[in-house]
Amino acid sequence: MTQLEAARKGVVTEEMKNAALSEGVDPDFIRKGIEDGTVIITRNTLHRSIQGLAVGRGLRTKVNANIGSSQDRADIEEELAKLRAAIEAGADAVMDLSTGGDVSAIRKAVMAESTVPIGTVPIYQAAYDARRKGKSFVELDPEEMFDSIEAHAEDGVDFVTVHCGVTRSSVERVRKEGRIMGIVSRGGALTAEWMKFNKRENPLYEGYERLLKIAIKYDMVLSLGDGLRPGCLADATDRGQVHELITLGELARKAFDEGVQVMIEGPGHVPLDQIEANIIIQKRLCNGAPFYVLGPLVTDIAPGYDHITSAIGGAIAAAAGADFLCYVTPSEHLRLPTIDDVREGVVASRIAAHAGDISKKARGAMDADTRLARARKALDWEEQIRLSIDPKRSRAIRETSPPEDESVCTMCGSLCAIKIQK
Amino acid sequence: MTQLEAARKGVVTEEMKNAALSEGVDPDFIRKGIEDGTVIITRNTLHRSIQGLAVGRGLRTKVNANIGSSQDRADIEEELAKLRAAIEAGADAVMDLSTGGDVSAIRKAVMAESTVPIGTVPIYQAAYDARRKGKSFVELDPEEMFDSIEAHAEDGVDFVTVHCGVTRSSVERVRKEGRIMGIVSRGGALTAEWMKFNKRENPLYEGYERLLKIAIKYDMVLSLGDGLRPGCLADATDRGQVHELITLGELARKAFDEGVQVMIEGPGHVPLDQIEANIIIQKRLCNGAPFYVLGPLVTDIAPGYDHITSAIGGAIAAAAGADFLCYVTPSEHLRLPTIDDVREGVVASRIAAHAGDISKKARGAMDADTRLARARKALDWEEQIRLSIDPKRSRAIRETSPPEDESVCTMCGSLCAIKIQK
Repeated sequence: MTQLEAARKGVVTEEMKNAALSEGVDPDFIRKGIEDGTVIITRNTLHRSIQGLAVGRGLRTKVNANIGSSQDRADIEEELAKLRAAIEAGADAVMDLSTGGDVSAIRKAVMAESTVPIGTVPIYQAAYDARRKGKSFVELDPEEMFDSIEAHAEDGVDFVTVHCGVTRSSVERVRKEGRIMGIVSRGGALTAEWMKFNKRENPLYEGYERLLKIAIKYDMVLSLGDGLRPGCLADATDRGQVHELITLGELARKAFDEGVQVMIEGPGHVPLDQIEANIIIQKRLCNGAPFYVLGPLVTDIAPGYDHITSAIGGAIAAAAGADFLCYVTPSEHLRLPTIDDVREGVVASRIAAHAGDISKKARGAMDADTRLARARKALDWEEQIRLSIDPKRSRAIRETSPPEDESVCTMCGSLCAIKIQK
Repeated sequence: MTQLEAARKGVVTEEMKNAALSEGVDPDFIRKGIEDGTVIITRNTLHRSIQGLAVGRGLRTKVNANIGSSQDRADIEEELAKLRAAIEAGADAVMDLSTGGDVSAIRKAVMAESTVPIGTVPIYQAAYDARRKGKSFVELDPEEMFDSIEAHAEDGVDFVTVHCGVTRSSVERVRKEGRIMGIVSRGGALTAEWMKFNKRENPLYEGYERLLKIAIKYDMVLSLGDGLRPGCLADATDRGQVHELITLGELARKAFDEGVQVMIEGPGHVPLDQIEANIIIQKRLCNGAPFYVLGPLVTDIAPGYDHITSAIGGAIAAAAGADFLCYVTPSEHLRLPTIDDVREGVVASRIAAHAGDISKKARGAMDADTRLARARKALDWEEQIRLSIDPKRSRAIRETSPPEDESVCTMCGSLCAIKIQK
């Protein structure tokens, strides 16, 4: 029984209880959200080592960190170190996007060690397997695509990105309208190329029923990917992107009807003033299904700082109702992220999620801020450090610059406004 | 003649022409904005080494970097290095907030070397002078406060923060409503303590006419300070803050009537959902005068990352109409910023300003993004680096991780979506 099937029968599962406890809500609030399709719990029935993670309406905004090897850099130990760094920094979920080295071995190691849900993009595995067999991706048999999805499900993967909305008609719209960046999703580009070469519809769209059967067997959440997401501000919210979203809404409804949990993936590179509209139309077109956004990045000009451009967009998205933020690291657009990048990315994304939760007036979201403000007012530095989002970082910064008067800091010294009023 | 007096007479000054050129607008657009009080040009008539900087409605959002010594750390060379770092990183203006060492010497050195307008907070000088004379700040004669303002004007300071809105009635409102953090502005706290000790009204409020006379003589812009800005989210947009803003609106009108250029300073720590309202009420209460905001910081829990919390708030503020962003560095709340902090702070704030300008559909704001997107699509790495907001940083990141195939990066390798489509 999937969480959705249980919710429909009025059953409050262990996963729902755990989620309710960590959110500070009633277990039936979670159950009801799942029944409505506005909440999911991501946990493959075979992934025993983790607790389920609830994502969706009325809950804390969650943060995902992408890790994974590439052809240029594939080291299982490094990926495990990234996993640990992400979890330590507070990521709620991790996606292993490995495309280099022994990707199956990396995934299995990540799955075994993780304490948080793991997501993957099985089409990367298919592309990787094709390359190993000396084939081009476009020569893959649809059977092999489904095999890679099934293999991930059997490994206990909790959620998978599937680019089912990259259809003939949405790709045609992208082509006709014209774009600066074209298709920038790897899965989207691979799928579109396969379709062009084979002169066929997207196998994951045509074979969606089969996908649902795999998902339901393991209660694996389908993350309906935005293969046509914009890769620069100028391409944002165009007809191709919105057409794909309509299709994802239809597919989300079908999954929901059959008891499969789904969430929807969203852009990408989006001007600040279009972010709220993107969230509103997703909620409307996709029956209120949880929205999982990458960034959004509010400018294209800041490689090296895309954790910041994404924190800006992510905060606005979360405030407008996005449920799950995929982090972006300072290395985006430049290189495979390092362990430090993972840490920076997770913290920036957590700040965005938290700012959004405060804006949404989520239950108790501002309590942490008020506690820290009280410690600041009391000039209690140990408490300020302890309550901060990254105690190690705040301690390290303060320690490099010890003030003569330990009750203040070296910014203001005796002119400290708080001290003046004491 | 001040820029405002000139504008009223229909005179387009050299400063207006230069500003128009750098903004890509008609010189009369600048003149008209100054005449309306919605634009200022900050340039003390004695500060010959800089061009004026135009700030206000219809113009690019500007960024200010705070530098300056403290009692714990006072080194003129370090402050000059911070000045250079700020300008190199793209700051439009710099405030020297020195409170330690020979503050007059530091200010003069900064004034001489800077190519951008310099702002100060003369009350810090007054407090510093009092300390040197062995007096408490509360024992200062109002005469000494005005002397410090006049001294800064004579040095050629382009804009000064004056906390004229910290009045008996606004401070009383803060006290009556109650706050977690109380007054967190140094100038605000000093002024309030002076008023309490001397049982008198704020000398800069009572002697505002005198302040206007100093300002008009040098065409020094008055930056009407928000001495009662909130120091934590819970204190934001309270009656004390808004009452002060009403007073600042009245004072802005008086300055405007007498030919003195003014801008208004704004918060601070503000929940994301209150930022737009803060901008809207400032514009309405202050006759459309330019708004100069600090941050705003959208959470209190992220010391060590407050350049990010401020970039989120700053982008939203700029999108809503804020004209001038004061940066916040990663060291805020922990220590006096280092040279690296200055650089990080300026870039984060520039990203926020730029994202806001795109959102406001400012003339050509998105051109830079589209150019970079085209270079990205062409896999032209040299051009991507050249067009990025911090070419040194983007080059350094890419160079640590050379891909086997130089046309891509180590994130995706041969799975690069752009490459796949070629």
